Amino acid sequence: MSSSATDGAKNGKSFDAIFQVILRELTSNAPDPGIQQALDWFQQVLEYNVPHGKKNRGLSVVDTYRLLKKNAHIPEEDDQKAAVLGWCVEILQAFFLVADDIMDQSHTRRGQPCWFRQRNVGLIAINDAFYLENAVYAIIKTHFDGLPSYVKIMELFHEVTMQTITGQCLDMVSSRPDEPVDFSTFTSQRYDSIVKYKTAYYSFYLPVALAMYLAGIYDEDSHQRAKAILLEMGHFFQVQDDYLDCFGTPEILGKIGTDIQDRKCGWLIVQALLICNAEQRERLQDNYGIDRPECIQRVKDVYHELAMEKVYKTFEDESAIRIQDLIGKFSGSLPPSIFMSFFNKIFKRNK
Amino acid sequence: MSSSATDGAKNGKSFDAIFQVILRELTSNAPDPGIQQALDWFQQVLEYNVPHGKKNRGLSVVDTYRLLKKNAHIPEEDDQKAAVLGWCVEILQAFFLVADDIMDQSHTRRGQPCWFRQRNVGLIAINDAFYLENAVYAIIKTHFDGLPSYVKIMELFHEVTMQTITGQCLDMVSSRPDEPVDFSTFTSQRYDSIVKYKTAYYSFYLPVALAMYLAGIYDEDSHQRAKAILLEMGHFFQVQDDYLDCFGTPEILGKIGTDIQDRKCGWLIVQALLICNAEQRERLQDNYGIDRPECIQRVKDVYHELAMEKVYKTFEDESAIRIQDLIGKFSGSLPPSIFMSFFNKIFKRNK
Repeated sequence: MSSSATDGAKNGKSFDAIFQVILRELTSNAPDPGIQQALDWFQQVLEYNVPHGKKNRGLSVVDTYRLLKKNAHIPEEDDQKAAVLGWCVEILQAFFLVADDIMDQSHTRRGQPCWFRQRNVGLIAINDAFYLENAVYAIIKTHFDGLPSYVKIMELFHEVTMQTITGQCLDMVSSRPDEPVDFSTFTSQRYDSIVKYKTAYYSFYLPVALAMYLAGIYDEDSHQRAKAILLEMGHFFQVQDDYLDCFGTPEILGKIGTDIQDRKCGWLIVQALLICNAEQRERLQDNYGIDRPECIQRVKDVYHELAMEKVYKTFEDESAIRIQDLIGKFSGSLPPSIFMSFFNKIFKRNK
Repeated sequence: MSSSATDGAKNGKSFDAIFQVILRELTSNAPDPGIQQALDWFQQVLEYNVPHGKKNRGLSVVDTYRLLKKNAHIPEEDDQKAAVLGWCVEILQAFFLVADDIMDQSHTRRGQPCWFRQRNVGLIAINDAFYLENAVYAIIKTHFDGLPSYVKIMELFHEVTMQTITGQCLDMVSSRPDEPVDFSTFTSQRYDSIVKYKTAYYSFYLPVALAMYLAGIYDEDSHQRAKAILLEMGHFFQVQDDYLDCFGTPEILGKIGTDIQDRKCGWLIVQALLICNAEQRERLQDNYGIDRPECIQRVKDVYHELAMEKVYKTFEDESAIRIQDLIGKFSGSLPPSIFMSFFNKIFKRNK
């Protein structure tokens, strides 16, 4: 732990304050004055893209670590280390979001214009995404080099990054802009794979696994159990996300959903295709993936006819029961509270 | 180019054959059949973007390793490990090139259309760049986990990737498409920083440092000496590259130079600004960075008036002497042949 972060601990700095420590470490005092302009740019990249989300993933590292250490004294330094890892997850997420927004040609994110749409940014944002990704390893080296968890943490970030990239690839090859939408590929199996790889590993397993490493839990059995439970929760979370993309309130979400015009293989279309009749399927086929208000509306009309809101609510209720059951039966030697705490953060969310 | 590396006769498998091994490891036998389509896609990404370059960087790992082990028997396994690291450098390079081509909106690369311009690719190429970058760490884990060099190799790739991203950032903020070209920022100092960070670390220091780690050379003094010499060579290489971008033969280069219209802070414009008169500076100011044939030609006219070809030849000759002198005086306990071998590969190149 660098002295500045340790000071942070002594001063009782909050999670947000640790971000300021990391920001300074990454962007101050260039070893070479010739690169200061790049560091100044990266400071803007970090400030614009990292700290304005819900921070669920990052805070989960801290929360999980504290729950794992429940009956033990937590040295301030270790508590700060959990916060540092939490921000690494948030920075990894920022990397994915900056890049996804370019690939999807999105407009808004977290209630502000997407980074690449800022004046003077544009395609430089691709390099900025690389910067965010690699900043994670610079932070890990600064704070964990020499500790028993150091290599496991690096490897976990590599592994989870690769899984997320794999999921993004599956997602994009399922919705190719140059070809007609092919509903035959919009299967539940395909959807499950996209969700598991694109979202669940980094959003759910990663934060908990990091906290487990920090708490000295390395055994394969505990990690497999955590993974099974958390991937299930990640699936539930993504279904919510797909539902909110169409039925959520843009002002609350901080973004305008574009899954229909982006021809995404999302939960709503996959479920709709399973229950629609031939005429409805034809209307979906004619309108899905076309970026015109009337086409988007016609897709939504079919969703309303199929009562997709009700289909979703049923899924939500059944999922809650299934996940809580899994937590009860499969936590092994891990405290079930680490999973319940996570679950309570996402259940019945509207943003 | 040294033939010993190219034929790899000693141990059967050539450098190119090791690429096939890596390709299979990365893309066959998905642990989860749901992601096979992504692996098939990534196989195309690897095949299109990795093996068609000059492979100087990759082969340098093998050559350097053999020179470092000159008087010792090299077990076949270690020779293969050098080739694996060589391909890691080539894959890292492919990551940078795929991304740079999107950011620069380039058209051709290595005599074929840029990857993102292929049908059905487009902005998916951003995710493909991430894939290439992270494939490096998957390969390192497969081949080096548990070896003494494992963590040093990972950290070196992280560090060098960050340096390259920093150089790319400096380069891009020096040539912003939305603002008039600002020649006051086109200084030799700025140029030197861009070159050092964007090219020299990954193209010159990285391959040699990897071979040093593989040969068990970890001491800071040797690495500092290698770095000083190799960054100097990297600078020389990039000046060549900038020269060839304007004065090279597109058919031989396999690409059409775009530095003038891309308003790059390149060696030619930096040198031209140092020696031009007020009228020539005005013509450069009026035409640099404009993507129209007549504007590009007017910039080239000024270059011809300033005899930039001759200015370059003088620089080339002086650099050769300076670099050879540095190698002689500064190699320390490292064999000077590792640097001379590298230097001979790039001196007087035309592609």
